[in-house]
Amino acid sequence: MTDRRGILIILSSPSGAGKSTLAGRLMKWDQSLSFSVSATTRAPREGEQDGREYYFRTHDQFRQMVADNDMLEHAEVFDNLYGSPKGPVEDAISAGRDVIFDIDWQGGQQVRNSGLAEDVVSIFILPPSIVELEKRLRSRAQDSDEVIAARMQKSRDEISHWAEYDYCLINHDIDEAEQQLRAILTAERLKRSRQPGLMTLVRDLNEQYEARK
Amino acid sequence: MTDRRGILIILSSPSGAGKSTLAGRLMKWDQSLSFSVSATTRAPREGEQDGREYYFRTHDQFRQMVADNDMLEHAEVFDNLYGSPKGPVEDAISAGRDVIFDIDWQGGQQVRNSGLAEDVVSIFILPPSIVELEKRLRSRAQDSDEVIAARMQKSRDEISHWAEYDYCLINHDIDEAEQQLRAILTAERLKRSRQPGLMTLVRDLNEQYEARK
Repeated sequence: MTDRRGILIILSSPSGAGKSTLAGRLMKWDQSLSFSVSATTRAPREGEQDGREYYFRTHDQFRQMVADNDMLEHAEVFDNLYGSPKGPVEDAISAGRDVIFDIDWQGGQQVRNSGLAEDVVSIFILPPSIVELEKRLRSRAQDSDEVIAARMQKSRDEISHWAEYDYCLINHDIDEAEQQLRAILTAERLKRSRQPGLMTLVRDLNEQYEARK
Repeated sequence: MTDRRGILIILSSPSGAGKSTLAGRLMKWDQSLSFSVSATTRAPREGEQDGREYYFRTHDQFRQMVADNDMLEHAEVFDNLYGSPKGPVEDAISAGRDVIFDIDWQGGQQVRNSGLAEDVVSIFILPPSIVELEKRLRSRAQDSDEVIAARMQKSRDEISHWAEYDYCLINHDIDEAEQQLRAILTAERLKRSRQPGLMTLVRDLNEQYEARK
């Protein structure tokens, strides 16, 4: 496992499809996973802490990071900028740690078209129905109908990009969806191309054949 | 799942690495899996039944099947011919059923270079050590040292082809190896490219958005 590079696991879905819950569960299942904390220009909400939920930055600070090529991806959503700082991600994957990204299709496209494309595994989570999605969106926020309408439109845009992802799953049941995500991650780690350490094992096996003679 | 094609799951390993046990366990785990029964010219052993362990054929019958292009792959091993009849495999994958192949590197190469290449997922199972492998080979058969030596040489040839496979796992522990195989199969089934039925789901979701307006 020594010279193994970490995997960039991109999770995208319309909001309300369970992506953040699933990302949290994956992190609990495997404590070696890193989470890519996004930077944003939006104001912190009650209880949010800089560097935990987001890196909270001013518009000027954010634009400077983009200009310095310190953002792996970034996009504007509802008048605010969101992005993934590059440094922590590069440190993690160089050390062989897998990193989870909770980002939208715009971010997904940028990461998949960056220099790190070979390290990416992208997963799209679909809701079983739109009625279900709207229910979840309404239940968790005291937002106006206008805000809900904007979110629903954004969710529709998001879903239209499902076919750009390596894997797709339907979140009928959160436990089943979690099992499916674990299976994807387990399988990706077993890909020969992600196990450079096997060269050493096979060399050892060959030496053991020689030693028998 | 309707218009989904089945996956050809190729399992290869040196004999003694646990491949047949693992194939059997996978078949028990998921009863929808088919097993590709090989044809062979070797004589049936005590308890073996035609069409269950193997299709037992004469050399002439076997060569005729090859001539008729009825074999997906075939190879000569220790003076006997072994091969995978094409018909049952094509029927299964057209019906959306996944098929397990317990074949060696020669068979794996032929299937991967056949017209069915896009349907193939290939998995190589490595033993943790050669001492362990030889122990397993000796424990299960009352073979002469000469036969064991020939098997060991064949196992070494087999291992030398590990890098041609999509996935590699080390059978330290049979239960863990089974979990890993299940994860690979679960993940492969979640690949977007293997779920043509999602087009229909997404069309339904879009209609639900329209219906809200």
